[in-house]
Amino acid sequence: MKRVGIIGGMGPEATVDLFVKIIKNTDAKKDQDHIPIVIDNYPQIPDRTAYIFGRGENPLPYLLESVRRLERASVDCLCMACNTAHYFIEELRRETKVPFISMIEVVLEKIVEEGDCKKIGLMATDGTVKAKIYHNAFENAGLEIHNFEGGIQRLIMESIYKLKAGEHEQAKELFKNAISVIKSKSYDCLIAGCTEVPVLLSLIDEELLEGIKVFDATELLAKRVVSLCKD
Amino acid sequence: MKRVGIIGGMGPEATVDLFVKIIKNTDAKKDQDHIPIVIDNYPQIPDRTAYIFGRGENPLPYLLESVRRLERASVDCLCMACNTAHYFIEELRRETKVPFISMIEVVLEKIVEEGDCKKIGLMATDGTVKAKIYHNAFENAGLEIHNFEGGIQRLIMESIYKLKAGEHEQAKELFKNAISVIKSKSYDCLIAGCTEVPVLLSLIDEELLEGIKVFDATELLAKRVVSLCKD
Repeated sequence: MKRVGIIGGMGPEATVDLFVKIIKNTDAKKDQDHIPIVIDNYPQIPDRTAYIFGRGENPLPYLLESVRRLERASVDCLCMACNTAHYFIEELRRETKVPFISMIEVVLEKIVEEGDCKKIGLMATDGTVKAKIYHNAFENAGLEIHNFEGGIQRLIMESIYKLKAGEHEQAKELFKNAISVIKSKSYDCLIAGCTEVPVLLSLIDEELLEGIKVFDATELLAKRVVSLCKD
Repeated sequence: MKRVGIIGGMGPEATVDLFVKIIKNTDAKKDQDHIPIVIDNYPQIPDRTAYIFGRGENPLPYLLESVRRLERASVDCLCMACNTAHYFIEELRRETKVPFISMIEVVLEKIVEEGDCKKIGLMATDGTVKAKIYHNAFENAGLEIHNFEGGIQRLIMESIYKLKAGEHEQAKELFKNAISVIKSKSYDCLIAGCTEVPVLLSLIDEELLEGIKVFDATELLAKRVVSLCKD
């Protein structure tokens, strides 16, 4: 088995979500069947979106510090439990010899493989949208990503920050409002492209998204990690 | 803030439970308010109970390997998300300069502080019971720990292993049966003294334990970790 290192804490609950999804996607009958994982839950990494908008400290040195900690903890591959942090992935890849799995690439591969998405909507942070993290990766593969207009995007962003603040009820209400508008916009596919979004999705009624295929970036990353690290 | 290192993977779900309890017990309004944690989820650590009964590989070298990994990841204090593994805590403490928090000591301090427990029952693995991990620690403080007779203990142990095998429904039924017998035995206090037990408790109806005070070792450890690591 290989040991995976997770750069986490962005936020901690999203890191829990990735951890749980790795466990659930592992075929295990006893403790020892599970894969070894080192989680560097490092919530002090500065806000990614704020930096992308030119308002905050650069997260890169903190992300690198986390990479170094995980290298010293002898991990065989790396990943990050934060979509927005993928803005820095190429710089991180240049700094380490440890293979670095990209969540964005995993989602892209899955959507290409399924092949039947007509209109793909992106539920992500303002930072991920502005930096075109998904847009660029998908454009290279001939696929178009749609982000949401101001009002919906604002609801998504606010619900993400409410969740990070532990205000689950408010987060849920804001997110429900976003989803009910999105529902009317003829998307057949949605990317849960912020690690807080699957946590938000778990708070709302599944029926709200009936008929729309949701690609959960966290779940897809978890599956990739398990398939790479098992035996 | 201090960085805590968690020796985990015994099992992974119990490690998630400790991680979640640390997050929930932290007063945080944004990611950066949370404490830094390194989790070494190392499910390959051999079965603790099997070893205590002379049937399996010694977990100590694996636990030490985990301590070394966490030391290299620059943690400021250590703990373990497994009560039975505390059989080895003194040997581990001798091997590291990093302060090592004991779950058993944290539970003992809490029970002494509350001061009103008359009959304390221990829900734990066969290994924790046989090695008298709680019994000895509490005896030194003048407190008596009661473990359960064969039939109930067997139900508890089986439910723990079913949970580790991911068989939640069966685990829940076995555990419910154990609790309904325990309920008739005049305990006023119970220690959830296996990290799988709080997970089992979360699966059953709270009313089943009405009138009995439950000391969740995982929750108490989480609170201690937060108070030690915050600022």
